[in-house]
Amino acid sequence: MGQALYLECDYLNNHHLYHLYPPKTEWSCRKVLKMTLNVDAGIVEKAKSAREAALKLANATTAGKDNALLRIADSIDKNRKQILAANNKDIELASGLVKEGQMSKALLDRLILDDSKIDEMILSVKDVAKLEDPVGKTVSAIELDKDLELFQVSCPIGVIGAIFESRPDVLVQISSLCLKTGNAVLLKGGSEARNSNEALFEVVAKASSEGGEIRIPEGWIQLLETREDVNAMLKLNDYIDLIVPRGSDQFVRYIQDNSSIMVLGHSEGICHVYVDRDADVAMARDICYDAKVQYPAVCNAVETVLVDAAIAREFLPLMVERYLKAGVEVRACPKTMEFLKDQSELKPASEEDWHTEYNDLIIAIKVVDGVDEAIAHINQYGSGHTDAIVTDNKETALKFMRFVDSSSVMHNASTRFSDGFRYGKGAEVGISTNKVHARGPVGLEGLVIYKYLLVGKGHTVAPYVGADAKEFTHKKLSKDFSF
Amino acid sequence: MGQALYLECDYLNNHHLYHLYPPKTEWSCRKVLKMTLNVDAGIVEKAKSAREAALKLANATTAGKDNALLRIADSIDKNRKQILAANNKDIELASGLVKEGQMSKALLDRLILDDSKIDEMILSVKDVAKLEDPVGKTVSAIELDKDLELFQVSCPIGVIGAIFESRPDVLVQISSLCLKTGNAVLLKGGSEARNSNEALFEVVAKASSEGGEIRIPEGWIQLLETREDVNAMLKLNDYIDLIVPRGSDQFVRYIQDNSSIMVLGHSEGICHVYVDRDADVAMARDICYDAKVQYPAVCNAVETVLVDAAIAREFLPLMVERYLKAGVEVRACPKTMEFLKDQSELKPASEEDWHTEYNDLIIAIKVVDGVDEAIAHINQYGSGHTDAIVTDNKETALKFMRFVDSSSVMHNASTRFSDGFRYGKGAEVGISTNKVHARGPVGLEGLVIYKYLLVGKGHTVAPYVGADAKEFTHKKLSKDFSF
Repeated sequence: MGQALYLECDYLNNHHLYHLYPPKTEWSCRKVLKMTLNVDAGIVEKAKSAREAALKLANATTAGKDNALLRIADSIDKNRKQILAANNKDIELASGLVKEGQMSKALLDRLILDDSKIDEMILSVKDVAKLEDPVGKTVSAIELDKDLELFQVSCPIGVIGAIFESRPDVLVQISSLCLKTGNAVLLKGGSEARNSNEALFEVVAKASSEGGEIRIPEGWIQLLETREDVNAMLKLNDYIDLIVPRGSDQFVRYIQDNSSIMVLGHSEGICHVYVDRDADVAMARDICYDAKVQYPAVCNAVETVLVDAAIAREFLPLMVERYLKAGVEVRACPKTMEFLKDQSELKPASEEDWHTEYNDLIIAIKVVDGVDEAIAHINQYGSGHTDAIVTDNKETALKFMRFVDSSSVMHNASTRFSDGFRYGKGAEVGISTNKVHARGPVGLEGLVIYKYLLVGKGHTVAPYVGADAKEFTHKKLSKDFSF
Repeated sequence: MGQALYLECDYLNNHHLYHLYPPKTEWSCRKVLKMTLNVDAGIVEKAKSAREAALKLANATTAGKDNALLRIADSIDKNRKQILAANNKDIELASGLVKEGQMSKALLDRLILDDSKIDEMILSVKDVAKLEDPVGKTVSAIELDKDLELFQVSCPIGVIGAIFESRPDVLVQISSLCLKTGNAVLLKGGSEARNSNEALFEVVAKASSEGGEIRIPEGWIQLLETREDVNAMLKLNDYIDLIVPRGSDQFVRYIQDNSSIMVLGHSEGICHVYVDRDADVAMARDICYDAKVQYPAVCNAVETVLVDAAIAREFLPLMVERYLKAGVEVRACPKTMEFLKDQSELKPASEEDWHTEYNDLIIAIKVVDGVDEAIAHINQYGSGHTDAIVTDNKETALKFMRFVDSSSVMHNASTRFSDGFRYGKGAEVGISTNKVHARGPVGLEGLVIYKYLLVGKGHTVAPYVGADAKEFTHKKLSKDFSF
């Protein structure tokens, strides 16, 4: 029973295998530990079932999928007690671990469900049902020759592998996004949320596959249980088409480093605001304040403010005062210090600060010599997430927007707008710092791909080849695929 | 000097490290061999240079890029002698290896350049110059609120890693596609073509970076030389955004299995034609003949013909006769045999045949019980490349097109149409059997991604949050990004 699996990991000092992070440094520093373990054949069976179900689910009607989503919402409501009871078991176990110092309080907090969180879950599933179905859209249509028409039509990707930590509501969110887009899903949550995840999984699986004629095929959703399952999942290239991890930067990086399956993940958000010499100084202060203080714990919050030397004297003193008043710790470069009379409340910034995502009320400030140095700094130290320029000079703004290599680049707007909901996507699958498949805030479009459908009347290739080859017309068609 | 690199490979019985293929079967059958080797720091330097150049190249003008392509075409023409002399060195070395039985004759043939091949190269570079620039296009535009506009604009991916075997013309083809799309490229060709590749690289690098004001930044193209470089390249996640391998199915699979960087590659082309009970029999025979005989060595040629039992008696005898006349070896399932009087020239098909890409004048024929069994067979044994149905029944055709999970599905047309040129893409980057990023025949669009540009007038997020939150307008705009 079971297949030999090759497992690669770096440290073994945590109770989650997928918490075993590699250090971020060079390969040479990595301690590599090798072992072979037996994977329960069960996970392969689950993956096979998911793939079979995916073929059917891909052709479920919009009404069928939306109906199933509404049944799920309803069933979560009806099973509140069971879900909260299961969650209570997890909380009890976790509280014990927190007391023993084996789990952080923050992890425990993220684990806790209550009635209002369940209400949010229900609402979010209903919202997904309301979104437009992204499957079956004609992306392009072209006539290759008379009566030979090619259609590019959107379709689900197939099987999604979702890996997430503590928060059990993520299970509901990801599975509803997958259902809406017609994808099957293998779910692996944190073991600390095991009982909650099992209860929610039961509800989603059962409610979706009821419903008579328009029921969703069983097997489209699968729950993996053991910690070994995660590493097994990362190697299931033949069954999983895309991995969607939710969690910390290190967590996502571990997944990326250990799978050759495409990972739709974000790395850090080391975001910048550059205040140019031609900035409206009041506007610049408002944007820098908003981008840091409004909600510092998120990936689109600013971490480093870059200030053009030509405007530093005017901009810096009031800005720093405002930050300090809001309880922000200010880490300043030597030049920044020079522009400030009272340096008693400042800390000096080190090289490491330019690399750091604080996710906290801490800001690094650096004085630069114009837009070119700002661009160079961002492309060197940034994470390609979101960066902003404040300037009234259109030429400078354009240069910044063209040369900063990030998924979102803002002109005279806060970095905090970089988000699926604010971008009008309705639901957010994640914010991707990949440069393939999907980049930046990703909505449902990140879970679909396309297939080509060619409709002919007996066309063969032979007449289009050789000396007297027929020519293709390659005429764009403005119609959708229909039959 | 050099960084420690973790190398994973399976066999060591070939002179190319990247020819060390893993067996295609389960993990349990893999012999895994581990070692640590020192990678010349040179490759990291080359990758860094490419990344720096990529930032500039991303903003080269269309005219600048097209001009560079024309200079490259011109320079290939002017340097014919040197290129052919370098190629001669490779041919001499390779001929020696062929004599000693250490290299196949086929590999040697693919290596040979002559004047007409150089003419083709020049033409293909000029053709790429003529294509529309896919960079800088506004993909979508949306108003988030008054004076806060979001544009999704196409841009290059960044740094492409290209790995290819013997044929030196691939170097020119891939580098011109990368240049056109504004991507930097790290190239690694087969060591048997080392001298040819060096000569072509020199020409492309020099010609592109001449040209005064509109020159292309140096360093955008880099040539890797040693066999260790390939495995090093597969681990350069921080510098390479996408790997494009050209070569055999096994070669591509090795790359995919050994890198967590996204690979734009095709696996096999196990293509099917299904002849339905409602098919026009003459049309079905023409399509099956064309799909196999017109050019059997390519991935979009048919390997298995599936015949509906209800039409087998009418369809099969003449079809098999036609195949045999064309020198096609026919491997028939037991039911197929039953429909044929003379079985002397037939071979029995085994389970293995359904899994096999012959790339040769061999066809497997299987009788199935209608469209459902055909779909199930294709989804089980096919490679998701291209599959066709011949039928006059629209409902059956629609079912087939919806439920066959392949990148191209044809109705009453030959599988051989599945190709970038025939699909009107102008240039083909490859045929992808991935289900993310790009699927099916991939043109220049496979080498671009997008970034979001948000243009505001000092907008902050705070007013859009909380109890009295302002609402977003999320109004679609029909305009391009401009400034």
